[in-house]
Amino acid sequence: MMRTRPLKVALLGCGVVGSEVARIMTTHADDLAARIGAPVELAGVAVRRPDKVREGIAAELITTDATALVKRGDIDVVVEVIGGVEPARTLIRTAFEHGASVVSANKALLAQDGAGLYAAAEEHGKDLYYEAAVAGAIPLIRPLRESLAGDKINRVMGIVNGTTNFILDKMDTTGAGYQEALDEATALGYAEADPTADVEGYDAAAKAAILAGIAFHTRVRLDDVYREGMTEVTAADFASAKRMGCTIKLLAICERAADGESVTARVHPAMIPLSHPLASVREAYNAVFVEAEAAGRLMFYGPGAGGSPTASAVLGDLVAVCRNRLNEATGPGESAYTQLPVSPMGEVVTRYHISLDVADKPGVLAQVATVFAEHGVSIDTVRQQGKDGEASLVVVTHRAPDAALSGTVEALRKLDTVRGVASIMRVEGE
Amino acid sequence: MMRTRPLKVALLGCGVVGSEVARIMTTHADDLAARIGAPVELAGVAVRRPDKVREGIAAELITTDATALVKRGDIDVVVEVIGGVEPARTLIRTAFEHGASVVSANKALLAQDGAGLYAAAEEHGKDLYYEAAVAGAIPLIRPLRESLAGDKINRVMGIVNGTTNFILDKMDTTGAGYQEALDEATALGYAEADPTADVEGYDAAAKAAILAGIAFHTRVRLDDVYREGMTEVTAADFASAKRMGCTIKLLAICERAADGESVTARVHPAMIPLSHPLASVREAYNAVFVEAEAAGRLMFYGPGAGGSPTASAVLGDLVAVCRNRLNEATGPGESAYTQLPVSPMGEVVTRYHISLDVADKPGVLAQVATVFAEHGVSIDTVRQQGKDGEASLVVVTHRAPDAALSGTVEALRKLDTVRGVASIMRVEGE
Ligand SMILES: NC(=O)c1ccc[n+]([C@@H]2O[C@H](COP(=O)([O-])OP(=O)(O)OC[C@H]3O[C@@H](n4cnc5c(N)ncnc54)[C@H](OP(=O)(O)O)[C@@H]3O)[C@@H](O)[C@H]2O)c1
Ligand SMILES: NC(=O)c1ccc[n+]([C@@H]2O[C@H](COP(=O)([O-])OP(=O)(O)OC[C@H]3O[C@@H](n4cnc5c(N)ncnc54)[C@H](OP(=O)(O)O)[C@@H]3O)[C@@H](O)[C@H]2O)c1
Repeated sequence: MMRTRPLKVALLGCGVVGSEVARIMTTHADDLAARIGAPVELAGVAVRRPDKVREGIAAELITTDATALVKRGDIDVVVEVIGGVEPARTLIRTAFEHGASVVSANKALLAQDGAGLYAAAEEHGKDLYYEAAVAGAIPLIRPLRESLAGDKINRVMGIVNGTTNFILDKMDTTGAGYQEALDEATALGYAEADPTADVEGYDAAAKAAILAGIAFHTRVRLDDVYREGMTEVTAADFASAKRMGCTIKLLAICERAADGESVTARVHPAMIPLSHPLASVREAYNAVFVEAEAAGRLMFYGPGAGGSPTASAVLGDLVAVCRNRLNEATGPGESAYTQLPVSPMGEVVTRYHISLDVADKPGVLAQVATVFAEHGVSIDTVRQQGKDGEASLVVVTHRAPDAALSGTVEALRKLDTVRGVASIMRVEGE
Repeated sequence: MMRTRPLKVALLGCGVVGSEVARIMTTHADDLAARIGAPVELAGVAVRRPDKVREGIAAELITTDATALVKRGDIDVVVEVIGGVEPARTLIRTAFEHGASVVSANKALLAQDGAGLYAAAEEHGKDLYYEAAVAGAIPLIRPLRESLAGDKINRVMGIVNGTTNFILDKMDTTGAGYQEALDEATALGYAEADPTADVEGYDAAAKAAILAGIAFHTRVRLDDVYREGMTEVTAADFASAKRMGCTIKLLAICERAADGESVTARVHPAMIPLSHPLASVREAYNAVFVEAEAAGRLMFYGPGAGGSPTASAVLGDLVAVCRNRLNEATGPGESAYTQLPVSPMGEVVTRYHISLDVADKPGVLAQVATVFAEHGVSIDTVRQQGKDGEASLVVVTHRAPDAALSGTVEALRKLDTVRGVASIMRVEGE
């Protein structure tokens, strides 16, 4: 059965992920060969700094000329773990043009131009796999694309950023504020020096775009994803959440509208009940909850990042792509046949938890309730607390369009008796 | 892109699962066609009772002659959802011989003769897929076989039987005894009239054999799986578990030995810490926890049974097999290249929680401790409770070979001062 000519792999990037890919390819070469049906050989490794010591990688494999490597013509699979849009995109396109299939871990690029890359792969009859781009080691893209291919997915809701989950978990368990928890995450290496991409939700938004596209067989661009970061979540919000039997998570939520005619994708902090499977996802773990018509409620849980977990996902793809090559076949390409429109955030139907500082005098609740009613938003519960002429009002609504909810908040701000809106948070997961 | 000649599917069995497969194939025909690249047509449905009303299925498709259906020669894919070993096995072999690929949900058959069926599939260049055979709707077989194909799996530990999880969850949350919880499960349709296959662990053992084979790329026969049911778990065991910060689950555990040279597979009730992700799997849900060298700790969660969840898994396989057919390719076949021996239960390294009724007199603890020491089993904690000349001793051990642990228990039974061994339970998941 075993073919003796090895399949040649070009590795673009040899950083956190790439170095682990190279290591496993070397140490587990026999296993990979047995699973693929042919040996795989590391044919070249492109990096920026050629002089850096790269343990276990023969010096003659290292090059700074990634373009020449992918143009060699004898490369079977290009593994792109450089990151960022360029030069990664051009390198991947060049790889297809020169006969290679591609495995990538690049969420930024996939979210930005997945459609263009799929089209290039298809034009050249090559594979494009990217399991590692979303939720690191967790098998998610393949289950969504293949295991659930006979089902109809209605919702994907996930914790897809480990850094922010680590921060929120710390805030939840220790009562720390945002900055303190962020400092700890940075000290422990969970947050980068510039944490913007994580804490402002950009990373999660890229993943939401990818997941929504796959789940609903449509195209969702990065710009279609509503995004709110988690830098304004406070210890007080966690205290409110606890009183409701909830915790707070930064969620990526992709939903099919009730009528099935449109979809939405969004990233924002939200309260979820402690009984929800996502509530117990601790530290930097990721988890994605999927609701499908026939399958019901599924959850996928695991490490969302890190060199070796991400390399595991890359290598799973590498095995599949190599097998496809030996079979002279390709795996499933883009599936965007439904062409569903992506609705704006205002059309999302959700619930709000609103905390108001109000004047402590009679009639305030009636005034506030009137504003909700005028916007067609029905109130689930109200909790009033007063002392020394100051009072706070915590309102939890029933489900309503986000536009009606935010319209309500705007109108509340204008009331004389409302001194301030202390916090607004969506409530999900029921 | 779309081919117009439909792919023909023969459905063997139209019960709980089969009727849902037929329903979804009809109601979601357009989606399936788009995902496959060709329409799929239900070409025939084999049942035992031809006169039963089958909603949504044209009467002329129904036949009692399953053999003739699979021999027709124009069938692309046979979906086997009859269950049991025969006639399912012969029908599947006949299907391969007559040019069809096969999707099956039959854990009993796969556990019994997976190797034989794989060989038949390979001989005829056909696919054998069976995602639905383990953990119903949860994508598990595909992630293990494909997503983790580049990784090394060291342990698979799962709740793979919904009936027993429902019973244990009831016992845990309501304090009910086994019989009472079983009665409730039966009344709600979670347990069959004869619950033996579930409560004695036979169903879970079949799944453990399948999972161990896939995870470790070796062959594990049903007889290789150690099996203990959960009918003797008592309310007192749950009380003890709670005192330890644990709950009790019926677990299927497949492990690679520390030296990597052998594997084990077993099914038994065990205490697991409440902090373990499997501890919070409620009701009839299933979940499988996977530890892989590079990926780390993953968990897959969802409904483990039921007509439509199981049909979702069957249809995911159907889409894959149909796509393979259009590509004139096949998916991965059996991977058993490691040929690792399966060690007996005695070699499993685990921990015991042992509850003893002892005489309430000085020196008993010393006597008991000596027995542990003589068997090379180190004690983690001891809790002593005495009243009115009666006393109980609860011992939790460190990790030791199961043979040493059971030898210890045997020797304890022989001590004069030990009046009885109230319960023994393994402790897992740390
Ligand atoms: N790290 C994770 O946990 C994780 C998780 C999921 C997905 N990902 C994705 O995986 C990809 C790689 O991430 P990473 O963390 O491994 O990044 P990294 O540690 O920064 O490594 C990037 C690598 O690319 C090389 N490189 C940069 N520009 C290059 C160029 N123009 N030509 C050739 N090589 C170039 C660098 O070379 P030098 O070594 O010479 O600097 C380095 O080896 C990204 O798309 C990321 O989003 C990462
Ligand atoms: N039910 C679940 O939740 C679940 C979950 C996972 C896996 N599975 C697996 O799925 C398979 C089917 O389970 P199920 O619950 O759907 O079983 P079921 O409801 O008992 O249905 C069995 C079907 O097979 C037909 N049948 C029986 N013997 C036959 C024969 N000799 N020739 C032709 N047809 C025959 C029956 O015909 P009649 O309709 O005429 O009686 C019935 O339609 C089993 O392997 C099971 O282990 C089931």
